[in-house]
Amino acid sequence: MANFKHQRYAIVGTGAVGGLYGGLLARAGIETHFYSRSDVSVIAKHGLHVQTPHEAFALKPVNVYSSTRKMPPCDVVVVCLKTTANTELASLLKPIIHDRTIVVVLQNGLFVEEDAAAIVGTERVVGGVCFLCAAKTAPGKIAHQDFGRVVLGPYRGVRGDQPAIANEVINEIVQTWSSAQIAVTATDDLLTERWKKLMWNIPFNGLTCILQTDTKSLLSHASARSLIFDIMEEVRSAAVASGCPIPESHRDRLVADTDHMVPYASSMYLDFQARRPLEIDAIYRRPVQVANQHGVDIPRVTLLMNQLEFLNQHHCRSKT
Amino acid sequence: MANFKHQRYAIVGTGAVGGLYGGLLARAGIETHFYSRSDVSVIAKHGLHVQTPHEAFALKPVNVYSSTRKMPPCDVVVVCLKTTANTELASLLKPIIHDRTIVVVLQNGLFVEEDAAAIVGTERVVGGVCFLCAAKTAPGKIAHQDFGRVVLGPYRGVRGDQPAIANEVINEIVQTWSSAQIAVTATDDLLTERWKKLMWNIPFNGLTCILQTDTKSLLSHASARSLIFDIMEEVRSAAVASGCPIPESHRDRLVADTDHMVPYASSMYLDFQARRPLEIDAIYRRPVQVANQHGVDIPRVTLLMNQLEFLNQHHCRSKT
Repeated sequence: MANFKHQRYAIVGTGAVGGLYGGLLARAGIETHFYSRSDVSVIAKHGLHVQTPHEAFALKPVNVYSSTRKMPPCDVVVVCLKTTANTELASLLKPIIHDRTIVVVLQNGLFVEEDAAAIVGTERVVGGVCFLCAAKTAPGKIAHQDFGRVVLGPYRGVRGDQPAIANEVINEIVQTWSSAQIAVTATDDLLTERWKKLMWNIPFNGLTCILQTDTKSLLSHASARSLIFDIMEEVRSAAVASGCPIPESHRDRLVADTDHMVPYASSMYLDFQARRPLEIDAIYRRPVQVANQHGVDIPRVTLLMNQLEFLNQHHCRSKT
Repeated sequence: MANFKHQRYAIVGTGAVGGLYGGLLARAGIETHFYSRSDVSVIAKHGLHVQTPHEAFALKPVNVYSSTRKMPPCDVVVVCLKTTANTELASLLKPIIHDRTIVVVLQNGLFVEEDAAAIVGTERVVGGVCFLCAAKTAPGKIAHQDFGRVVLGPYRGVRGDQPAIANEVINEIVQTWSSAQIAVTATDDLLTERWKKLMWNIPFNGLTCILQTDTKSLLSHASARSLIFDIMEEVRSAAVASGCPIPESHRDRLVADTDHMVPYASSMYLDFQARRPLEIDAIYRRPVQVANQHGVDIPRVTLLMNQLEFLNQHHCRSKT
């Protein structure tokens, strides 16, 4: 795995996350191939445009494909699809993996690495938790609005007992990404990072979507703000019960970060507006199942899940 | 109080409830005076039109007024305003009450009689719980879609220790209303009836409004249906803790009734669509306070309340 930087990357899903991180990798000179379901013709013609809080850059030409069958086998595949598209993951990955390909899963939710692990095995899967505000504002146009940190860690399966990827492989990825100006760190406790992110996603994705608003409006309203703390505490109680020791103060940190962040319409609210399926399984149902398995009652989270399930069925064009 | 039928009625608020019950009383030959904040000119010109599941009738001319100061003193005043308008109740009632006037409060929520009781005393206040689907479809036009039962009972104050109206007065009102084809019964336990109605209002008003849907769509969706049972159980637990013994089977009855009812957009959803203030205090905040006073945790109800408070602030034209 020496000279990792010269390996070949595939970005599967060129939305906000894939466009930003893939764009940064490509700009740094790493051979990067982008799969895009819907925006290939625009990106092929006009390039990939990324606006960050600090700068703007454009990639052109871009190695962009409407099918992974046209792509070369890659050494690192970064999965940046919505989890609702994971039903297609096996057919998307098969043409671009070889027998040592590493799959990095940059998705929100719990056990989102499981689909990739079923294809390449847990020992070749890295989970990544992204703390960023970004959106695809148009085909091939990515706006990175705030934050942008990624935490990478080994995935050990749903019960945490499966073989994990070697730390040195993750460290090499961290080095490569860092050299591409991506703020990235490694953790040995991926699951706790996932739960920490869920403490944000569960209240904010759900409430921005259900109440059709942004983070700033929610936090400016006393009742909604108090509700967010209560929901975060339910998520934290499930995390703690399942062996992820997150301190109560993490709620304050998340709220303080969000107070200082740009007013943000969560990706789930954007999905709702675009009538795309909502990421309910990964972000709500699996955490609720884990809580129930540990005898922890999380009624507020369950209620949000039920409301989102209703909206998903009644407002989405395609059902999952 | 003999010959109650020849007494003079005031209907304060000529919406769905006031238009329907006032219309039935007037049609039966009872002298009835209607206060309407917004529809006086239409009703004065075109009359009051009521469509029930069984028949349609029109009243013309109608004794209708844009101010209660133009109305004569009445023997029975029926309050059919939204509770959000109760801030005006004292000034509305003063011109039309004499020293024996009975006030019948046909509003949803808990302790909604308290505002009338502050004016005439608990011993002259009757609480009324309406189980009906009705809507004002246009000024002066009332559509009564389903059900229509009213239960009247004595109000005894927030702590239940205040002097109550005599049973015989309530019985006379029941007789008068019955003779006007209103399905009405008397109860000695008004508070339990209020809580039974809240078991319907709290899930259905909130969820139809938050999810922008009707009762039938909610009950057709497995998650929403299950959520409705859970919310009803929280309301029931608060009722039981506060001394109102409602059996668990009441949930099944309410859901079965709603299954057989026309698809219904609750009054709260109609208020939301019209950007009017939502009846949160009466229907949510006071029940939550009672639950908290009795040490009963009702997180789902509290979450709905918080969501509605947010919507109320962000979507209503006038703030309460």
